[in-house]
Amino acid sequence: MKAEKISELTTNRMSVYLRCLNELASKGEKTVSSDRLAKRFHLNSAQIRKDLAYFGEFGVRGVGYYVEDLRGQLTKILGLEIQHCVGIVGAGRLGTALADYYEFSQANFTVAALFDADEKKIGQKVGDIEIFDVKNFAEIVKKDNIEVAVIAVPAEFAQAVLERITEAGIKAVMNFAPIPLKAAGDVKIKTVDLTISLESLSYFLAQPTVSNGKK
Amino acid sequence: MKAEKISELTTNRMSVYLRCLNELASKGEKTVSSDRLAKRFHLNSAQIRKDLAYFGEFGVRGVGYYVEDLRGQLTKILGLEIQHCVGIVGAGRLGTALADYYEFSQANFTVAALFDADEKKIGQKVGDIEIFDVKNFAEIVKKDNIEVAVIAVPAEFAQAVLERITEAGIKAVMNFAPIPLKAAGDVKIKTVDLTISLESLSYFLAQPTVSNGKK
Repeated sequence: MKAEKISELTTNRMSVYLRCLNELASKGEKTVSSDRLAKRFHLNSAQIRKDLAYFGEFGVRGVGYYVEDLRGQLTKILGLEIQHCVGIVGAGRLGTALADYYEFSQANFTVAALFDADEKKIGQKVGDIEIFDVKNFAEIVKKDNIEVAVIAVPAEFAQAVLERITEAGIKAVMNFAPIPLKAAGDVKIKTVDLTISLESLSYFLAQPTVSNGKK
Repeated sequence: MKAEKISELTTNRMSVYLRCLNELASKGEKTVSSDRLAKRFHLNSAQIRKDLAYFGEFGVRGVGYYVEDLRGQLTKILGLEIQHCVGIVGAGRLGTALADYYEFSQANFTVAALFDADEKKIGQKVGDIEIFDVKNFAEIVKKDNIEVAVIAVPAEFAQAVLERITEAGIKAVMNFAPIPLKAAGDVKIKTVDLTISLESLSYFLAQPTVSNGKK
């Protein structure tokens, strides 16, 4: 395995492949070729072969991939054989929607707690998930074994929240605040900026003859 | 302007720069150097100079950039001097949270309508935004001049929804369904997969000695 060369774009594609394999498995399919996988899910077959080759020789000549086998391998590579506990800081509109989204869409992630600074929200529940005082963040993280923190607070509070998260020993952070954050070297931050995504569409609309590759 | 070479990563960074400039402007700052911009917002100064140079010569030697001037230029480049109307298909947890999020966080995007197939939801409102029958999508798009569609439906309905959106003449689509979609050549799709982001953190947690560059 040449894991040191793996970019985030590659791991993102591995997630997509795993999702596709899950769907094939649910339909009882036993094997799949890279060509068929690509055709069925609008992917690139050469890219699939290249990505998977990084991690080992999963394909069998004349057969393709064994669906269950490859699922198991990708699950392990992505660290998804273990259940990860997630804590969401910010129990506003976005934070509570994310709590719902991850609870309902994901078997491998459990939202253990929401956190907020607003006294009116503390002690309330979103589904089964309690909203705790963000002051008690480190304590709850330890108690509930939270490994991943999600930042869903307004931009101006995000850096301070990140520092609190880092002090609690969390190493994996997903940031929804629309601002670049500065983290310690051993902390991985993934920023998902929902506004930037819209703005890149706006750029496309402003210059359609360029971005869609046509004149 | 060498716009044909501009990647989405570049336009994403332009959005970040614009956000930073907006904050500087709100504090009354008149000029900023690429070094100071980088330091203040945890960016890369060489990257800033390179990105901006694609679009013209905005910097002034010994001064840096004029904040208001550069804001205006970036706003135009990103097509944000025009208000864009957004329609969100799927009035579930995620769709309604997105409606709130974009309404409250963005001056340049207006959520004009939500759409759903569930009769119980049709006619209800999320804030000021009405939920329409998705069957009437094309009609409402025309009436409200909707340019951007957001897909916030379960994966199995996403491709059919995309086809309906494309038939209505929409060219810019943001997809939150966790599945790759196949679009016509002149339609730009941006997929934001909230699960993939979490899975890339899981990968990092599974192999921390690799991903953070330390042994």
